[in-house]
Amino acid sequence: MAQPVVTTRILRRLLKTGAHFRAEKLLERIHPADLGPLLADLTPDEIRIVIDLLFKHRRAATMLIELPHDLLPEILDSVSDERLAEVLDRLELDDMLELVEAIPEERRSSVLKQLPVARREELRHAELYQPRSAGRAMTTNFSALDEKMTAQEAIDSLRAAGLEATDAILYLYVVDELQRLTGVVPIRRLVTAQPGTPVRELAIREMLSTGPDADQEEVAQLVARYDLLAIPVTDVDGTMLGVITVDDVIDVITEEATQDIYNLAGLSEEDRVFTSARVSIRKRLPWMLVNLVTAFAAGAIVGLFEGTLEQMVGLAIFLPVVAGIGGNGGIQTLTVITRAIALGEIEFSSGVRAVGKEMAVGLVIGSAAGLVSGGVAWFLHGNLWMGVVLFASMVVTMVTASLVGAAVPLALKALKQDPALGSGVLVTFAVDALGFFSFLGIATLLLDRMT
Amino acid sequence: MAQPVVTTRILRRLLKTGAHFRAEKLLERIHPADLGPLLADLTPDEIRIVIDLLFKHRRAATMLIELPHDLLPEILDSVSDERLAEVLDRLELDDMLELVEAIPEERRSSVLKQLPVARREELRHAELYQPRSAGRAMTTNFSALDEKMTAQEAIDSLRAAGLEATDAILYLYVVDELQRLTGVVPIRRLVTAQPGTPVRELAIREMLSTGPDADQEEVAQLVARYDLLAIPVTDVDGTMLGVITVDDVIDVITEEATQDIYNLAGLSEEDRVFTSARVSIRKRLPWMLVNLVTAFAAGAIVGLFEGTLEQMVGLAIFLPVVAGIGGNGGIQTLTVITRAIALGEIEFSSGVRAVGKEMAVGLVIGSAAGLVSGGVAWFLHGNLWMGVVLFASMVVTMVTASLVGAAVPLALKALKQDPALGSGVLVTFAVDALGFFSFLGIATLLLDRMT
Repeated sequence: MAQPVVTTRILRRLLKTGAHFRAEKLLERIHPADLGPLLADLTPDEIRIVIDLLFKHRRAATMLIELPHDLLPEILDSVSDERLAEVLDRLELDDMLELVEAIPEERRSSVLKQLPVARREELRHAELYQPRSAGRAMTTNFSALDEKMTAQEAIDSLRAAGLEATDAILYLYVVDELQRLTGVVPIRRLVTAQPGTPVRELAIREMLSTGPDADQEEVAQLVARYDLLAIPVTDVDGTMLGVITVDDVIDVITEEATQDIYNLAGLSEEDRVFTSARVSIRKRLPWMLVNLVTAFAAGAIVGLFEGTLEQMVGLAIFLPVVAGIGGNGGIQTLTVITRAIALGEIEFSSGVRAVGKEMAVGLVIGSAAGLVSGGVAWFLHGNLWMGVVLFASMVVTMVTASLVGAAVPLALKALKQDPALGSGVLVTFAVDALGFFSFLGIATLLLDRMT
Repeated sequence: MAQPVVTTRILRRLLKTGAHFRAEKLLERIHPADLGPLLADLTPDEIRIVIDLLFKHRRAATMLIELPHDLLPEILDSVSDERLAEVLDRLELDDMLELVEAIPEERRSSVLKQLPVARREELRHAELYQPRSAGRAMTTNFSALDEKMTAQEAIDSLRAAGLEATDAILYLYVVDELQRLTGVVPIRRLVTAQPGTPVRELAIREMLSTGPDADQEEVAQLVARYDLLAIPVTDVDGTMLGVITVDDVIDVITEEATQDIYNLAGLSEEDRVFTSARVSIRKRLPWMLVNLVTAFAAGAIVGLFEGTLEQMVGLAIFLPVVAGIGGNGGIQTLTVITRAIALGEIEFSSGVRAVGKEMAVGLVIGSAAGLVSGGVAWFLHGNLWMGVVLFASMVVTMVTASLVGAAVPLALKALKQDPALGSGVLVTFAVDALGFFSFLGIATLLLDRMT
């Protein structure tokens, strides 16, 4: 493997000294997946030269697909419509869709006009499927075998397609005269098959398939669960439409994990580490405003008890303790439940059981935290009732935090919303509000005994 | 695919009525990956019967591997040492290692004594590798070809191994007389090869491999990045040791994503949705204690300003606002950076750039939040200086939150620690402490003007 840092330095020098032929030779030896990170370190002018060189080698298409998404706009700007269409034409359907989405909308139609009609049609058809559906993620580039073929005929048809094509094939799909999927032959089985064996006999009949409208995350879970290398996509009649391969499944799993982690923090997926500060700010501002509203609402609850605080300002010290422990408990429960939902480990019926368990955990942890912090408060203030107030509010807050942390994502899932999106802010607000209310409320009731 | 809910109900009825033969037939038709969730809904007594039935079919091994980890202890308890050894013997090395780890330590040696010596040796050797290393994740069950073989000889050797074995093979590894890896032949290439072609000519020479000590997450990133189906593991001399396949890579990616999400919330990996409440409590208690300490420390900072609060108790309303907005900003930055580290998108040099960007974002978001909340404070209190205090402390808090949220995981990574572990509590504490200190500190300085 080439060392990326060294390669960047050499490439830069070659470009600077105008040694384009040697730069070309260097680029030739780099794997498409390594080009993205490499380009990320070049200036726009240098990138333009590299793209020109890659076009000579017809490698620009694979490179553009591997590029980090935040680099794409800048790079696409420097490529003409004709070239962009040329690149799109060379891509498989799922990659083509992804790149088309990266083209600014106002430019899209003029680029697509340059595409061959057949491919334009294919694209239009795929765009009918929902984003994040199997129909969008599948490739239409698969090998179908006639049921009546023999192993030797299947091998001959592969040989005709050439070695390069064979390299990408893992399964052959057996179809009947109506193009309906009837079986799958792992290409590995052809290796040891007798030439005269009908492919029908080599095929696996009991196989998984999915519809084009299935959620890509669910398809990824199927592939992961049954250790598949690819899964066929068929329509309601069983007609073969395409295939989703394991490398795309890995991308989906990584993408969805990022989305889950990001949603918990209220981040937009486009807000990555090297996204421009301008974009990150624009993405985070609305969320900050939502947070401001809930933070002020929590503050207003403190405000309700201004009279109590005036009489005993020392209570303010414990506000961060109640909010901190409750918030932590709520986020832990939320994390366990959203992760279980994402991994398909939980259904609605078992969800009720999960809520019960989390509340039991919250009760115990809340009691423990209440005992420790109540003890500290008793010691600090020399007043037992101070400790009682802290203990009671801690238990109430933790149990509620567990209830909210478990119920909110399950309810969102039942409403077919993303279970993680917005859960964090809701849970934090509920816990803060209830924590302050119970702590200051109980303190108000017991104020006479504490002073 | 069988519908799991229906299957569970039928299986239960069959077990209850003693129709074991029919239960056996039903179990036979269930994919190993579906057995786990199914068993999760049965009682321990029912599980024991199912395990007995599965043993008859020699399917208990694959089933145990697919089982949710929190169910294992209970189930292993009901299996004798001899049977457990029998199960282990049927597993590939990586699965065997995983199952051995699930056996309670005090029982392990008596189970392992029942294993054939060769397998026990294999196990002992694998255990020399670090947990989460490639050496632990690899299977030693791969097909090596002699460089001097022809395509036909390779096919004959596969045929001798039988159809079942061929099904699991994706690549054949070409080795020299010292068992050193010299090339890889995708089995797909054998299909279209001329019988007399030496395998040497079919082999891909430029291939990726990894050492047994490599971190499994880094290996997973390699496989994902280069769209591989398997990666060979070799020692320093290039001798073939084993293979890591794409289905294991998917497991690693899912596992590591769970770990990243869990670490941010201070959760232990063993604390899953249906882990017993007892285990969850035991895992979460220490973390709660750490949180208590930091929460009290944040409270103590509020305590430093008791005098100021006594003079102006209305300030307490804004404490949740400062802490809430700062905490949210810190967690967002932390999430972006830890995710980038997990996906290998960031190195130390680019880390400095990332810290700068996050601080710029924090400055702008902090100013915006400061203007809004400062305006609200001004309006509520009818005092401009109240707004100034809130604005200033919000800017200070957000910039620090961004700095800490970005620097802490990068520093942990530089120290070769897990970047996500403990970051959350550190960032929350730093933000709370600094938020309270700056807000109440500035308020103390300007107290004369505010009242």
